Amino acid sequence: MSEVGTLVLLRHGESEWNAKNLFTGWVDVDLSAQGEAEARRGGELIRDSGLRPDVVHTSVLRRAIRTSEIALHTADRHWIPVQRSWRLNERHYGALQGKDKKQTLQEFGEEQFMLWRRSYDTPPPPIADDDEWSQASDARYAALPPELRPKTECLKDVVARMLPYWYDQIVPQLLNGKTVLVAAHGNSLRALVKHLDGISDEAIAKLNIPTGIPLRYDLDAALRPVTAGGTYLDPEAAKEAAAAVANQGR
Amino acid sequence: MSEVGTLVLLRHGESEWNAKNLFTGWVDVDLSAQGEAEARRGGELIRDSGLRPDVVHTSVLRRAIRTSEIALHTADRHWIPVQRSWRLNERHYGALQGKDKKQTLQEFGEEQFMLWRRSYDTPPPPIADDDEWSQASDARYAALPPELRPKTECLKDVVARMLPYWYDQIVPQLLNGKTVLVAAHGNSLRALVKHLDGISDEAIAKLNIPTGIPLRYDLDAALRPVTAGGTYLDPEAAKEAAAAVANQGR
Repeated sequence: MSEVGTLVLLRHGESEWNAKNLFTGWVDVDLSAQGEAEARRGGELIRDSGLRPDVVHTSVLRRAIRTSEIALHTADRHWIPVQRSWRLNERHYGALQGKDKKQTLQEFGEEQFMLWRRSYDTPPPPIADDDEWSQASDARYAALPPELRPKTECLKDVVARMLPYWYDQIVPQLLNGKTVLVAAHGNSLRALVKHLDGISDEAIAKLNIPTGIPLRYDLDAALRPVTAGGTYLDPEAAKEAAAAVANQGR
Repeated sequence: MSEVGTLVLLRHGESEWNAKNLFTGWVDVDLSAQGEAEARRGGELIRDSGLRPDVVHTSVLRRAIRTSEIALHTADRHWIPVQRSWRLNERHYGALQGKDKKQTLQEFGEEQFMLWRRSYDTPPPPIADDDEWSQASDARYAALPPELRPKTECLKDVVARMLPYWYDQIVPQLLNGKTVLVAAHGNSLRALVKHLDGISDEAIAKLNIPTGIPLRYDLDAALRPVTAGGTYLDPEAAKEAAAAVANQGR
């Protein structure tokens, strides 16, 4: 039996809206200068680990695309095949997109705020098509029928739309022995990690994936992690960063 | 009958070795700061022209890849599908790779120099596998059998290895009505233009494609240019730039 390949997950670094503490979701903001530096650091970690990605998957959002570009140029793997999909996008944050996190916390209170941020199956209110932060007329989704175009999502929705991409595009490459890099977002990667590690709907609330630190999964023939939770290429930095993310919006 | 799509060619801007006046070929040098600025300008021209690339093709060389990335981010089309191929690479410059153009001109004389630079079917001497500028052990070509891995090329060789990619990958997309961006190199784009415009082996010697200025081809149902030579998105700048390229190495 042939060896199963290696999966490497990379969450994009700080975006312009992370820096401003706004809910972003599908709004296509760029990386901040710090986010660019995080992507370079992620690329250095990949390069120095000896991992050699054979293919990269990204969302269709600029902050994940630029993270993949910067990291791969740094790791001297800029020339590998690229695949992109809306199925790897960040969770659609509905009517919260463009809103200040701290103001939202004050306006709706801790309980509602945390329910929207962390509950598995409670999406925020849907965004209106004429909201300035709606993607209703975004050309990159024009080929998707209305029922596939979210106006809000909870993490459960993200799992449901992400998994077909995992099964159809990524798994065959892993079974073919490839090293596969996925450059995506906090919630699309949480959805994937939930699936890989069999994390419960309750326990996933507490899982934060740090930005810019590649997370390596070695998988068995059944595509289950050899080491539960995978291995961060910089474990110390991952521990510190996860703690910082957990305090966002406080 | 459905409309044939639009082809847009973009030659990468100045690289670190263009700036140093070295033969580059398949050596994977980065863009210079000026080359990055040219790519941004190319992206602005695409954006302001109203062209909306649906897919981008690049070589596997960093200077074309970064040009495509910078131009597409600028044109807000960073999210389109990406395809890469060694078949879009610059001409392999053989044993001249890494050599100073002016020194080569002085060492071998005007006639030999121009034969290597501009003759259709005279390649430079092949590069040795142990030359520091050889790609013999470059991972990105590891899947190519030896007979497909050039050690030198003339423009005729480039036409021969580029055309299968044109026919198999790009033409079906154009026939499907797509706007197709090709971000590549002086000689891989000359090879394509020679084919499109039916330029003779002699006349192609005098054709220079300027850097950073998108060249638009509208095509008829037989994939022949509606306007011979296509249309530069900035015709004045193209005229000036082509003259400057013709004087390289002088």
